[in-house]
Parts: sequence; structure tokens; C-alpha cells
Amino acid sequence: MFASNSSRFSLIVGPCAIESHDTFSRVARYAKDMGVTALRGGIYKLRTDPNSFQGLGNRAFEIVEMSKKETGLPFVCEITDPRQIEDLGKIADVFQVGTRNMHNYELLKELGRCRTPILLKRGMAAYLDELLLASEYIRREGNEQIAFCERGIRSFERATRNTLDLSAVPYLKARSGLPVIVDPSHATGKRELVTPMCWAAAAAGADGLLIEIHPEPEKSLSDAEQALSLEDFKMMYERLVKILEVMGRTIEVNPQ
Amino acid sequence: MFASNSSRFSLIVGPCAIESHDTFSRVARYAKDMGVTALRGGIYKLRTDPNSFQGLGNRAFEIVEMSKKETGLPFVCEITDPRQIEDLGKIADVFQVGTRNMHNYELLKELGRCRTPILLKRGMAAYLDELLLASEYIRREGNEQIAFCERGIRSFERATRNTLDLSAVPYLKARSGLPVIVDPSHATGKRELVTPMCWAAAAAGADGLLIEIHPEPEKSLSDAEQALSLEDFKMMYERLVKILEVMGRTIEVNPQ
Amino acid sequence: MFASNSSRFSLIVGPCAIESHDTFSRVARYAKDMGVTALRGGIYKLRTDPNSFQGLGNRAFEIVEMSKKETGLPFVCEITDPRQIEDLGKIADVFQVGTRNMHNYELLKELGRCRTPILLKRGMAAYLDELLLASEYIRREGNEQIAFCERGIRSFERATRNTLDLSAVPYLKARSGLPVIVDPSHATGKRELVTPMCWAAAAAGADGLLIEIHPEPEKSLSDAEQALSLEDFKMMYERLVKILEVMGRTIEVNPQ
Amino acid sequence: MFASNSSRFSLIVGPCAIESHDTFSRVARYAKDMGVTALRGGIYKLRTDPNSFQGLGNRAFEIVEMSKKETGLPFVCEITDPRQIEDLGKIADVFQVGTRNMHNYELLKELGRCRTPILLKRGMAAYLDELLLASEYIRREGNEQIAFCERGIRSFERATRNTLDLSAVPYLKARSGLPVIVDPSHATGKRELVTPMCWAAAAAGADGLLIEIHPEPEKSLSDAEQALSLEDFKMMYERLVKILEVMGRTIEVNPQ
Repeated sequence: MFASNSSRFSLIVGPCAIESHDTFSRVARYAKDMGVTALRGGIYKLRTDPNSFQGLGNRAFEIVEMSKKETGLPFVCEITDPRQIEDLGKIADVFQVGTRNMHNYELLKELGRCRTPILLKRGMAAYLDELLLASEYIRREGNEQIAFCERGIRSFERATRNTLDLSAVPYLKARSGLPVIVDPSHATGKRELVTPMCWAAAAAGADGLLIEIHPEPEKSLSDAEQALSLEDFKMMYERLVKILEVMGRTIEVNPQ
Repeated sequence: MFASNSSRFSLIVGPCAIESHDTFSRVARYAKDMGVTALRGGIYKLRTDPNSFQGLGNRAFEIVEMSKKETGLPFVCEITDPRQIEDLGKIADVFQVGTRNMHNYELLKELGRCRTPILLKRGMAAYLDELLLASEYIRREGNEQIAFCERGIRSFERATRNTLDLSAVPYLKARSGLPVIVDPSHATGKRELVTPMCWAAAAAGADGLLIEIHPEPEKSLSDAEQALSLEDFKMMYERLVKILEVMGRTIEVNPQ
Repeated sequence: MFASNSSRFSLIVGPCAIESHDTFSRVARYAKDMGVTALRGGIYKLRTDPNSFQGLGNRAFEIVEMSKKETGLPFVCEITDPRQIEDLGKIADVFQVGTRNMHNYELLKELGRCRTPILLKRGMAAYLDELLLASEYIRREGNEQIAFCERGIRSFERATRNTLDLSAVPYLKARSGLPVIVDPSHATGKRELVTPMCWAAAAAGADGLLIEIHPEPEKSLSDAEQALSLEDFKMMYERLVKILEVMGRTIEVNPQ
Repeated sequence: MFASNSSRFSLIVGPCAIESHDTFSRVARYAKDMGVTALRGGIYKLRTDPNSFQGLGNRAFEIVEMSKKETGLPFVCEITDPRQIEDLGKIADVFQVGTRNMHNYELLKELGRCRTPILLKRGMAAYLDELLLASEYIRREGNEQIAFCERGIRSFERATRNTLDLSAVPYLKARSGLPVIVDPSHATGKRELVTPMCWAAAAAGADGLLIEIHPEPEKSLSDAEQALSLEDFKMMYERLVKILEVMGRTIEVNPQ
């Protein structure tokens, strides 16, 4: 699904957390019609505050299965515990390791024994060289289908949720030969900044984008300030295609 | 074992990783003679680089058991996976959650169901308020024996391994009522800075210290630059006792 | 010279420091032929280490005057002390306030009394909101020709010299209405990363670029690792023009 | 006035900004009675926001002169422009270079030509090695009476105003032989954290403290949240003296 130094570009979209069949299905169908590579959506949300909405958990399985069937799109799913591999494996086409688990080496080792591709997010304060080393925990167990995800680092700046480090894109690609996806939603935490950062990521040579979209962002149960509306997404998409053309790339719409 | 706002101070010492019976036993007996609260030592080391020394693993169990019997001192042991709870529980008097796992909420939840005290280290880029929230993942499952550990944060500064944030001590104590231990070894990464930071931590009101010591630091298989020699430790100890006296505290030497 | 929300894009190029007539003139003529907006080059270099090369100082004046006459290009010049305004004003078409002086409010106030446009670089650890406030020190004295420059912030990451924060571009533009220029040379400190960051900046909506170029980068007396060679610059330029076309912009080549 | 590796400890106190004769005189007399080394107080305040209170400016001169005469205490005064040297030199016994001017090399060079001692504050994102190099700009012009001031660095943490880096104390002392003063008021920005950080700094081996005190902190025109009240200061002082005794030091009360 992921490809480095190729002409294909991965566009992965969906809500932060899967909240209801209605919302997810609406997003999935819209995304399919626009032309995207895969869907995303949190099932078990890792939340800093244990009192925050933690995701639908197993109730989300059926919702995902229906949308996958309806759209034919693959599904990228965060995994937080080695004991989830079997269950989540039934619906996940890609396992995403979130920023809080980049250093969870026990999890990485077990994912190395799967055949499912891994989207490995950068730890919020991980050196790029640590991210490269973390991928070795997966690769040495046999799984070589790995893509990195730059999702912003924690800096002193308070105007944005994190600081998007786009120089990570050429740095990681040159040293690993692996694809690098960018997540501008978590990086900026501000809707108005997501669109320009999507374009910037494409021009920096990123191999894909992971974007939060929501039919009614202001009603989102988590990360309400950072999801693009479907209209915002369309506007972003139209110029993205043109920048990708300059970069010699096209969005992969018939994956696998 | 841990006590906040009390007159007792916890001094926890040992090598970064348990390397051999001879070395660990020598450290344990020395520490017992000086007067400490507990021993520490890595069994499974979490290393950024998968090619680095990863600890002795199960072979370290027997070494720890022998030293515990010989000295009567409790043992603080890092845990990195919920599936280790049963085995490590046989030798651990305290489970330490390392900086890389502060956000590993699945692990925290399982530790909340134990009766073993938890030493919860601050994530390398965790806000203090996130550390407070992480403790809630443990506490809400029923385990209220929690101590925090400030071990340095990742800042721009390159002269030290991390930046020790001693203001964390009064901040966390005031908001949680829980004890706060300081680890100056990982915080500074430089032997020459460890001793003054031990004294500073005590004067800041810390409830204990977690210190790496090694009979021959330069021969240590991990973190060779930050362990105190036994002579350094003695020099540190003597002034520490005097500062603790000013603070109205004494080192707890007969725990539990 | 600077324009926000317009179709014009400012491309400002030159060596880090002016080292000799031969080198500067070669760069200036090459840049003129390619099509750029202005020249840059350090006269008095601010160096962290007082033993480093500090720039040619006054000897650079004549070099700059000759190249300006030869190419007709305006010159952007760093200023570090209010007492330099008169002298530097003879050759500077834009005064650049460097990262080390963003908080030098005495300097900012005096520059506010000039009629020369100001390129105000972000302090290496300045909040974006502090950069906005710093511009007020200039504006309230009467000078409203101000452009911001994002040049990377100091983060924990050690793979790059600084961390380029491209989300600064839309953030600053939305709040100030002023143009934002990006300096990918100081931001990354690595030649291989400069070109992709130039393209990314353009796609993020930047109003210009400030780039170090040098005929023989490896022989540069300062910042040798970050200057683009003239060949690198040409390759960067060709794709930049296409990205700018997507963004509805063209490089301003006949300024003023 | 400053002394490294000696038994003397410098305690420098005063309000953030000099607001009125009444307030400053009350602080000065209280401080004199408790036993301190010097007074401090801002005359021209460097404020991020140009609309904030900027200090009394020249009207503060007379206030300072009266309090100096009344108490016999020397006065530490921030300087922000080389053109202030002559005027401020009439009342300043020490010139303080603030965090925003550590990289203002033109100012440092001119201060190197004075005979007044310099208190050089660390830039908010300066590497310790850059602070050491900045002192060379002063020293090579002839002024060797330099003390450093650690005042907190800008990190990702938002619970405190800055992050106090006490490991700077032994690091700088070992490499420069110069004294290191700690400013816990600006470092923490929270009154409740100032007192424990004063004690910690003393135990870390600091050669002095720079503390904001105010008779009515909540009425302070700047930095109201971080000034100690006179009662807070007394409580801090009493334990400080005991910690200094353990460190083999006493507060210098009859300076010069």
C-alpha cells in the first residue's frame, strides 16, 4: 500500500475516532467519491486524560466492516497492545503505531512478526534517528512493510498543538528508503493550518497524507478543532492534485 | 515504601543493568552498609537501538533473589509489558514504569490491578499535567501506591542528556499528594553533574532519589558515563544526609 | 519589495558572508541571469564564537556597491546595532534583523523611524505571538514596511540545525496581513534538505525565500554545509517556478 | 561582588520593576535588615508587548540613589543598549545583561570595555556552550568580572514559565571558573515554586540568587505571579542559611 520513491501518493482520511455508523459511512463514501487511498478512524482512542472519550472499542468493528464493504477502501487502524493483533487484524489493512507507542518495543517486536503493513508514527519527542532505530525492532523480526509518519514534535511553541517538522520527510527517506507519510492534523491542531501543511508536505516529497476529516467538525467527540470539513477537504484536494503533478505523482485510488 | 510529606526519604541505588552476580552483589552489599532504602537494576533494558545490550533477562532473576536475601533490601524493577507482571512480580517490590511507557495506557491499567507499588517515570516530553493524568489510569483501577519520578525532559540543550526539571517536585507534590522521586543519573547523563543534582533534589523537597552506581563505571555495559563510583556515592551521601537534616528528613533504611 | 497576498514572490539569494569581490560578483550575476528578486550577504556576521570569521565589515561595502550596479538588484543586509543605520543605509535596500536581535527592542524602535523595509527574523525560541508583538515595536514608530522571516526554531532534534516551522507561514499571515519569507538554509543547516524545504515553503503559501548559495559551498568561510551550489540552485529553481504557478504566483524579477 | 568557589554567597533582591519610591524603599530597608548582598530593580523594562508597562525610566534614578544611600547596598541594573552605559553607570554597581540580549554582541563588546561587573543571563534558548562563548565577547575586551545567571530555558512544558536548568550551575562553574547565580523567579514564574528552587540552587552549588520580592506581589505592575512577599522571603531565607551552612557558605552582607 505504501510506496517510496514511486509515483504513487497515499491519501488516508477519516475521523479522529469512529463515533457512529452514520458519520463514518458518510465520510467513507465522500472520500471514495473524491478519490482516496484508504480510510482511518480510531477504535480504541489513546487519550491523555482517562476521563476523555476512549473510542467505541469493539462496537466500531461492525461499522468499519460495513464501510470497507461499501467502498472497497482499505482501513488503517491504530494498535496499542500486542494482545489486540488478532482481533484488529480482522479489519485492519495497516496497523498504525501511535506517537505514544513508538518506544513500546514489545509491541514493535510483535508487529514485526505480522504480515500486515505498519505505519510507525514518530514519538512526540523522538529524534529522527530514534525513529529509524524503532523501525529496526519491526524489520528484524521479518516485517519489512513499514512507512513512517511525521506528526509534529513537541516544541516550546504554543500557537500550534505540535510543530510539524517537514524536514523529516527528505531526512528519513534518504536514510531508510522507506515511505514517509505526514499527518498535518495532529501536527498543527488547527483546521486553518491543515490545508497549507498538506500542500507543503506534498511539495517536500512526502509519500502520503493522513488527514482527519469530519462531516461536522465542530460536533466531533475528539480533536474537534483540527478536522477538515468535507468542503475544506475538497478545496485542499484540488490544489493537492496539481502540486502532486509537479512532483510527478498521482494519488493511489485502486490500492493493492 | 514511598512516603510523601513525611520525614522519610527513599534512596534507591543500583547499576543501570544487571550484568553479573559479582557486580550486582558488590553494589548491593555496599549500598546496604551505607544505608539505603532499596536496590534497582535493569533486567530487560529498553534500548533505543535494538543492537544495544538488552539486559540479561531471566538470567538476572537468580542474581536479584540472592542479593535480596543477602541484604534484605527491596527491589525496584522496570516493567515494559503487561505479560511480565506475573514473572517480575516474584522479585519486584516496586514496578517502575519507564519514560518510554508513561503513555502506554494498557500497561498502566493492568498495573492498576496489582497490589505492587508503582514508580511512574515522566515521559521524556510529557507535560507535568499529563504525568498527573497518567497516574489516574493506575489509580482508577484500584492501585493507589504510586510515586512519580522526574528523570529529565528533552530540551534543546545538548550539554546534558536531558534537562532535569526540579520544579516538577513541588508542582507534582502540591497537586497530587503523591511522593516524587528524582533520577539525576538519566537526567544529566554526566557523572560530574549527578552529585550536585542529588543535593539539589533533596533541597527542592524530593521524597527520594534513584541513582545509578557501579563499582567500575567505565566498564558498565550501558550508560557508562553517568553511574557514580562507590567512592563518588559515599561523598554524595555524606552531604545528602546533612541537607536532609535541614529538610527534616532521614533516609529510610528499614523499609516495609 | 515585499508583498503579502499578492501574486509576487520574493527570491533573495547570496552567500552567508561576503568573502571576496570575485565570489560575490559571480553569485550576483548568476542569480540575475536565473531571475531573482534581491541579493543578500553578511557584512558584519554575528557569530556565536568570537573567534569565528566575523565578516569583512566595511571592506564589503565596495563589493556590494559594484554588484548592485552591475546587476541592478536590491540588497538585503543584516543590521545589529542602531549606530549602523546611517552607514549600512547607503547600500541596504532592506534591513534584516537577525534571529539574535528579534528581542533587541532598542534596535527595533530605531528601525521603526527609518523608511527602509525591514525583514524581521523570528528569534530562535520566540513564540509566533512574540514575533507579532516585536513587529509592533517597529510599526508604532512609523515604519510599516515589515516582512517576517521563519528561519527554524530550536527544538530537541539534533539531525537538523533548527526545526523549520512552516505552519508559521499561514499563522503569521492570517494574524498580521504581512508577508512571510522562509529561510530554509539556516533552518535545516543541511544542503540536502534545503531544496525540498524551498518547495514546501512555496506550497505553504510563503511570500518568498531567503537562500544561501555559493559557487563552491565547501570552501565557504561560514555555514559551509548549508549553501546550495549554483547547480543545486538551478535544479531547485526549476521546480519552484512550477509550484508557484500552482499557487498563482511568479517570482518578482523587476523590483521597485 | 561575585565570587566563585568561595565561601561567599550573593543574595540579590528587589522588585521586577521600580514602581515608586515608597515601594522600592520599603523593599530595600527590609532586605537590608534581613541581610542581603545587593538590590535589583528594573529601570527600563524589556517587555515582549510594547503596550506593557515599560518601567519608570529616568525617574527611577533618584529612587535608586536614595535607597542606595539609605541602605548602603549596591545596585544591579539591567542594560539594554550601549548608549545607556554612561547614564546607568552612575547608579549601577553591576550591569545585568538580560536573556533577550545574551546574543547582542555589540552590547557585550562595549560592556567588555567597562570596569563594572557584568551579570550575564542565559538566553532563553541558548546552549550552555553559547553562554560560555558569549562571555568571551566581554572578557576579550578586558572586563573579567563576569558572573553567569541561569534563569530557565524555554521548553515544551507549560506548567512553568520556563524550565530551570540547575545542572547549568556545576556545568558552567567547571568550564569557566566564573560564579553562577540562579534566578528562580523568572525560571518558574510561579511564587509557590520559587522558594524550593532557591534552596535547590544553593544545594546545587550556585554562588548566588537573584529573587523578585515585592511588599504586595498581587499589586505588582509586572510579573505579579512570581514575586515573593516579604513574609515568603523571610521563610525562604531561614532555611537557605542552613543549607548554605551545609555547603560551607555564608551570605555576603558587607560587599565590596
